[in-house]
Amino acid sequence: MNELTNREVAFTARNSFRAAMGIEVESVDAGSAVLSLPVKEHLLQTSRFVHGGVLAVMVDAVIGTAVRSLLPSGVTAVTAEMNINYIRPVKDGKIFARGQVVHQGASLLVGTANIEDEQGKLLATGRATFFVKT
Amino acid sequence: MNELTNREVAFTARNSFRAAMGIEVESVDAGSAVLSLPVKEHLLQTSRFVHGGVLAVMVDAVIGTAVRSLLPSGVTAVTAEMNINYIRPVKDGKIFARGQVVHQGASLLVGTANIEDEQGKLLATGRATFFVKT
Amino acid sequence: MNELTNREVAFTARNSFRAAMGIEVESVDAGSAVLSLPVKEHLLQTSRFVHGGVLAVMVDAVIGTAVRSLLPSGVTAVTAEMNINYIRPVKDGKIFARGQVVHQGASLLVGTANIEDEQGKLLATGRATFFVKT
Amino acid sequence: MNELTNREVAFTARNSFRAAMGIEVESVDAGSAVLSLPVKEHLLQTSRFVHGGVLAVMVDAVIGTAVRSLLPSGVTAVTAEMNINYIRPVKDGKIFARGQVVHQGASLLVGTANIEDEQGKLLATGRATFFVKT
Repeated sequence: MNELTNREVAFTARNSFRAAMGIEVESVDAGSAVLSLPVKEHLLQTSRFVHGGVLAVMVDAVIGTAVRSLLPSGVTAVTAEMNINYIRPVKDGKIFARGQVVHQGASLLVGTANIEDEQGKLLATGRATFFVKT
Repeated sequence: MNELTNREVAFTARNSFRAAMGIEVESVDAGSAVLSLPVKEHLLQTSRFVHGGVLAVMVDAVIGTAVRSLLPSGVTAVTAEMNINYIRPVKDGKIFARGQVVHQGASLLVGTANIEDEQGKLLATGRATFFVKT
Repeated sequence: MNELTNREVAFTARNSFRAAMGIEVESVDAGSAVLSLPVKEHLLQTSRFVHGGVLAVMVDAVIGTAVRSLLPSGVTAVTAEMNINYIRPVKDGKIFARGQVVHQGASLLVGTANIEDEQGKLLATGRATFFVKT
Repeated sequence: MNELTNREVAFTARNSFRAAMGIEVESVDAGSAVLSLPVKEHLLQTSRFVHGGVLAVMVDAVIGTAVRSLLPSGVTAVTAEMNINYIRPVKDGKIFARGQVVHQGASLLVGTANIEDEQGKLLATGRATFFVKT
């Protein structure tokens, strides 16, 4: 694991929500990130598919990770807005979220994310804006 | 509780994700719904605020509930897309999600949602499109 | 017409795009605005309905007007992001855009807009984030 | 020009709004499209930059073109929803919109678009959902 990946793992060690979900850091590079999430019972909705909200969480989390990789330690960015299109449902296996920053401004960063299943099939695609707190 | 509220409670009884999050059904009327969520440790991110993804989950869930209230039992609608603007962070108390359907078409329903804290302060606002499966 | 309406009319006098579209300022109050647009040939697409992009323009323009009503003269805000759901098509008459700011932060303002026809039927609904330039 | 490009040029010949804007079809392939727009006075807002709504129009138009390239002649798809992030302003030259379909379902198609200036700098990025009318 590179330094950015280690930094993200350390930063999210106290992130109770990521732990409760089961989100893992796969890799972080400057401006991009990959997270993963094993599908388990606690992520399923009534029809026994992964709840749509889970994929929205992954979009937010992976773009947040990609954004953080471009900021100095101690500088915080918060999600200003996020959107997602759902492509196909998923009920088992492991989910991968691949995010990248497409623009880094002084105050606003914009990133996109694809959520895929183990076979690389697109489950959802999203975008988010992060605001750098000063 | 009215019949629509009872129906939603029954429908979501097997919804493991809602249970894991702690989401409760407050009330359901034709085309609108209120859900709530007590803030607990498992919903917090590194900065000890509720994770942004949690509010996205609430937008999806409450609009889904409002959509379901307008459909016959057995007819399923899935989230086609969702978006959210984050207004202010929250770290404790109870979160309320208030959703309503603003348009019901034959295949597509559009709803909006406000996420508020106990004092009625706006935490986030969102919108979603649901697609009726046939 | 009140002072805020006069100010918006004066500010947009040099706005060539609004003039080319035919957008008129109906009224502006603190944090809200109404714009209108008579449907004419130059707004129609191949199927002879108003082009969807026109309604997106109206969402952006009316929220921008509502945002401006809350800022001191000379302070500029730019659209950071915008989204819209299309409800029903329109082919004639006059279109009305009603926008309001739902949150005013130091740097970011969030507004919502409904686009309606002359009978008040909902044509589209949207939301936008504006960023205050300093 | 290939057959899909010719078909789009013919289809949009009666599109008054595209003509009024000045939108040109650069190229169309199966599932992707490029449109262009020379910046002229009628596209500028008060600050003399291209109006944000113009870029929203381009996102809608180019994804619509990419969607149409995948549908049989005579089958119509309408925009269900659209979103856009604004990256940097533009005041002259030619604007290019590059769109592609990322998912084609039976009823819903999802596409993404980048809006760029002549030097290939990103001006805006967006996404849209189209609904196939039956």
